Amino acid sequence: MSASRTELANAIRFLAVDAVEAAKSGHPGMPMGMADIAEVLWNDHYTHNPGNPRWFNRDRFVLSNGHGSMLHYALLHLSGYDLPIEELKRFRQLHSRTAGHPEAAETPGVETTTGPLGQGLANAVGMALAEKLLAQRFNRPEFDIVDHMTWVFLGDGCLMEGVSHEAASLAGTWGLGKLVCFWDDNRISIDGNTDGWFTDDTAARFEAYGWQVIRHVNGHDPVEIDQAIRTAKAETARPTLICCRTTIGFGSPNKQGKESVHGAPLGKDEVALTRERLNWPHAPFDIPAAVYDGWRANNTGTVREDAWNRLFDRYAELYPQLADELVRRSKGRLPADFDAVAEAYIAKLQAEGPVVASRKASQMAIEAFAPHLPELIGGSADLAHSNLTLWKGSKSATSGDADANYVYYGVREFGMSAIANGLALHGGFLPYDATFLVFSDYSRNALRMSALIPANAIHVFTHDSIGLGEDGPTHQPVEHLASLRYIPNNEVWRPCDAVESAVAWSEALKRRGGPSCLVFSRQNLAHQPRGAQQLADIARGGYVLFEAKPGVCDAVLIATGSEVELAVQAAKRLAEHGVSARVVSMPSTTVFDRQDAAYRDAVLPPACRRRVAVEAGTRDFWYKYVGLDGAVIGMDSFGASAPAEDLYRHFGITVDAVVAAASRQR
Amino acid sequence: MSASRTELANAIRFLAVDAVEAAKSGHPGMPMGMADIAEVLWNDHYTHNPGNPRWFNRDRFVLSNGHGSMLHYALLHLSGYDLPIEELKRFRQLHSRTAGHPEAAETPGVETTTGPLGQGLANAVGMALAEKLLAQRFNRPEFDIVDHMTWVFLGDGCLMEGVSHEAASLAGTWGLGKLVCFWDDNRISIDGNTDGWFTDDTAARFEAYGWQVIRHVNGHDPVEIDQAIRTAKAETARPTLICCRTTIGFGSPNKQGKESVHGAPLGKDEVALTRERLNWPHAPFDIPAAVYDGWRANNTGTVREDAWNRLFDRYAELYPQLADELVRRSKGRLPADFDAVAEAYIAKLQAEGPVVASRKASQMAIEAFAPHLPELIGGSADLAHSNLTLWKGSKSATSGDADANYVYYGVREFGMSAIANGLALHGGFLPYDATFLVFSDYSRNALRMSALIPANAIHVFTHDSIGLGEDGPTHQPVEHLASLRYIPNNEVWRPCDAVESAVAWSEALKRRGGPSCLVFSRQNLAHQPRGAQQLADIARGGYVLFEAKPGVCDAVLIATGSEVELAVQAAKRLAEHGVSARVVSMPSTTVFDRQDAAYRDAVLPPACRRRVAVEAGTRDFWYKYVGLDGAVIGMDSFGASAPAEDLYRHFGITVDAVVAAASRQR
Repeated sequence: MSASRTELANAIRFLAVDAVEAAKSGHPGMPMGMADIAEVLWNDHYTHNPGNPRWFNRDRFVLSNGHGSMLHYALLHLSGYDLPIEELKRFRQLHSRTAGHPEAAETPGVETTTGPLGQGLANAVGMALAEKLLAQRFNRPEFDIVDHMTWVFLGDGCLMEGVSHEAASLAGTWGLGKLVCFWDDNRISIDGNTDGWFTDDTAARFEAYGWQVIRHVNGHDPVEIDQAIRTAKAETARPTLICCRTTIGFGSPNKQGKESVHGAPLGKDEVALTRERLNWPHAPFDIPAAVYDGWRANNTGTVREDAWNRLFDRYAELYPQLADELVRRSKGRLPADFDAVAEAYIAKLQAEGPVVASRKASQMAIEAFAPHLPELIGGSADLAHSNLTLWKGSKSATSGDADANYVYYGVREFGMSAIANGLALHGGFLPYDATFLVFSDYSRNALRMSALIPANAIHVFTHDSIGLGEDGPTHQPVEHLASLRYIPNNEVWRPCDAVESAVAWSEALKRRGGPSCLVFSRQNLAHQPRGAQQLADIARGGYVLFEAKPGVCDAVLIATGSEVELAVQAAKRLAEHGVSARVVSMPSTTVFDRQDAAYRDAVLPPACRRRVAVEAGTRDFWYKYVGLDGAVIGMDSFGASAPAEDLYRHFGITVDAVVAAASRQR
Repeated sequence: MSASRTELANAIRFLAVDAVEAAKSGHPGMPMGMADIAEVLWNDHYTHNPGNPRWFNRDRFVLSNGHGSMLHYALLHLSGYDLPIEELKRFRQLHSRTAGHPEAAETPGVETTTGPLGQGLANAVGMALAEKLLAQRFNRPEFDIVDHMTWVFLGDGCLMEGVSHEAASLAGTWGLGKLVCFWDDNRISIDGNTDGWFTDDTAARFEAYGWQVIRHVNGHDPVEIDQAIRTAKAETARPTLICCRTTIGFGSPNKQGKESVHGAPLGKDEVALTRERLNWPHAPFDIPAAVYDGWRANNTGTVREDAWNRLFDRYAELYPQLADELVRRSKGRLPADFDAVAEAYIAKLQAEGPVVASRKASQMAIEAFAPHLPELIGGSADLAHSNLTLWKGSKSATSGDADANYVYYGVREFGMSAIANGLALHGGFLPYDATFLVFSDYSRNALRMSALIPANAIHVFTHDSIGLGEDGPTHQPVEHLASLRYIPNNEVWRPCDAVESAVAWSEALKRRGGPSCLVFSRQNLAHQPRGAQQLADIARGGYVLFEAKPGVCDAVLIATGSEVELAVQAAKRLAEHGVSARVVSMPSTTVFDRQDAAYRDAVLPPACRRRVAVEAGTRDFWYKYVGLDGAVIGMDSFGASAPAEDLYRHFGITVDAVVAAASRQR
């Protein structure tokens, strides 16, 4: 006898309840509340292949309310992904594949890492945009090679977060017809009934964004859910929000509908009562064969992927270049000649020595590399002409053009970077986004998520210090460089001239396994002469740029970005006083720190304790490199509104100050 | 002959145009576009006294689109604030009072520091909430002592930002009837016409939040503007959004309506053409007397404040205690006995030695102090029972109760902290807000603004490390402690037990001139014994907590928060091996750094280079204190999902590791 829909949904509920019980922590309320929706979606509409979680044309499923992770693990386990029941029993334990919140890097079938609320929605918007643009680029008549849905579960918390506004607004503007979101409208958040703090008319709000909104769906009625999904799929020009009325903790006699079921185990007695109420006599983690039968999607998945593979084979015969290109891009491989292109460009720059702002050097690098990289998709949070993110080949994502590769994100830094993460996660695109460095604050958790997920996103930040001048302290970053460097697995570059800028771009484009932050100046920067070895060593994050007397190291001056030319001038001045100082240019401390000890010691000789670091940012960061005996020229306070030169003088970031600091020591 | 409305408005336009021209940088577009709105508002509706910018019952005016700062400076100058024309001539120069973006600390009459878009709106929501709650608390029949409007100018950028969603949603929920926002609907943002990236039906969106929305107001027609303001003031139960259609750069023949007028000088020729077009023959910074006459508000301001002062005097006769209380709170003074209350509580805790999580200790401190501090207004971003921010006397801001002192912010971290800044800026309240430490990322720029404005806001962050356990890396802060400490003028506390938690609270409550971040553990922390001097020295940010052999310092172990007990155990273990280590508890590096060198050297003897720091956060931060010869036990990567004890072992933050590190050196 086959299992009923209710039984299929209850399997989710009890896997969640029992896993949370075993872990003595977790969130049973959401899986119990959204089980029926998940059951209808996954069994009747979700196109995937559990045997190959990386099948390129699969639907994407994002659990934006990631605390309900056990719902996702239950779905993956039941439908036949490589997530055995033993993993569910080890929910939230060290080295399990069932973390407290879904982690893309840990669990097959998890598309993105969620938990920080609202960002899953934004990731999904990025995925749906990727799908739309890839379809525009690659599909041909009768060959809808790229053609899939993006499904999102989200809760009240996601909708309260500001990032939901930014992401939903753009999804509406972009007309992402294959994006469908299920709002778990249970009127309960952690502090209790949401009447006191969440009174938005959410349906009207999403209509104001240009979404199709399906109201008043009973989230526990499979027929209503199915009908809503059909309506959503029928609308191809607008994203859809399905408003599902649900009961949090559905089935728990004493806790359903209450905040107490949100984030804590039900407790032994209540679990027993819930088993009774839902007529689920099975032991924990014991799923009847009929239920597994109702869930298993391995066969249909294989059939689906096989059909697509056959379609793709025929496509590849007709359009071999397109097919190669799609395969290359979907696998995240750069074109075979990219290294050569980059090297040639960097060598040319070193020879020509342009004196430009590094933001301009960044644009020049984009201009040089982008023609070779159709996967590169740029954008800025309404600062294109300040961040200098546009290049000759830029075409707006809303242009309908097959080569669309630029996103006008508007003034939405957080949404932008979270969407960029989604673009990167989808595959087929390598996103870069941009804003002023100080506004990395606005997108900060999305930057962290780039590194944690990880997503190969490139975050461009210009106007990187008091050097931006008159806009003043609200716009002048101070603590941001240090704070970005401290995000694990985040690579941060602050180049000192056009050459280092090109290397930073090249390294960021080549990086796999995490994001890069490229930090550029508003003001012009001098060109630095370099030999071949020095040129090669830029990619190591730090290197000896200048030595007064080769081999003699009386003092080390460490600098980044706009302060490197200051340090070089200081070294020359010191040489006049008989002090042989070396200048270490350190465009990326994070990359330098990964070099072997021999290299690091060769650049920063351990015996040389006369060290001065200079950077127009937080001083404290640099003690790691100069130690208790060293000095740091930098910022301890906010900036001010004035022309840049006045500010450098005012804050004492000058050649004189570096010389004095180096002279004072020892 | 008196000046026409058009002339009055044009005075704003040309002060802005000419100041930007003189500075060779700035934003003329917005002041030219919103001049007519500002003229009607300030001359006919804005209740203020230029002679006393701190008059408590003044209306608040917030320029959320702060790049239009010259509009505000023009208004302040023209209406008679202490902002002479010389200051306007020095727009954006060092030491002027006319910074690139409005700064509350620099310019009389500027209520908050704006520029980072969207936050001005949120600050204003906080101000309007303060007004409402103070009115509830202090007003009596016939004595509307607290009774003022809060006016906001905002642009498309503010509305695109996610924080606008969070703030506007709460303003709607709270029914802030005296909050009126003017949307500068000019359809231009920096990247050009907003059609490509801003297609929201903003009016419908705000109606979905429960606002009154006045559509289609011609922002250049004084009659329409006046009528809209009257309609706004007549609505007392809902905030109002007035949608003003304007032309950016109004009056510039070749640049109006274009993005080029947003953020750059018009240029000499275009300035001349604009003078012609607007019939403004006067030289730069030359304002005709008749125009000044039309603007000057000093007399009416004095009359208004005098009337209020008389009202207040009568109120003080009838309700002397209330009047005293309002004066005390409005001046930001703590009750006279607060020091004694705090000292007694701290001494009692030291004697009793409770072993609790520091988040619980935080709640105990609130419980001890809050009954003495009616100005204390708490809140949490939907984590009240995790952050432990509620106390027995907590009453919801929506309760209508005269003693309302707690805000259910919902899942809106950024909005929360920006609103808290507004509560603090208004006066009469001392706000604390709360979320998990990792989500300080979401509110990060509001935290920075607390420090920059500055606003006396207390930001509580719990779940401060991998010690939170199973929720995993999305919820486990790593880089956050260091990153918060790097915000200038931000004081960060991470106490090691209930006693240090109480001191941290006491210091935060006493602080004026900036925010404090209080960082607490989820897990229980041991109580530490202390003598009287040690107890007193906690407030200095770092102190010697333990010495194996008094006076003998073979090694220094520096620790904070949950790692202090680890360090103490390690010191005891080292003593068994003949190493006399001292443990420095460093609950606040930011406060410790402000101590004189003698004190710092006494705590961290310069000669003792055998130093180990231990903190379950970014390792790199601590090299400032341990130097190149020291060791740091901490985190270099993201955390993981597992029980806390497993994680501490897994990441090597253990007594063994501290002992080994201290033994390895020298």
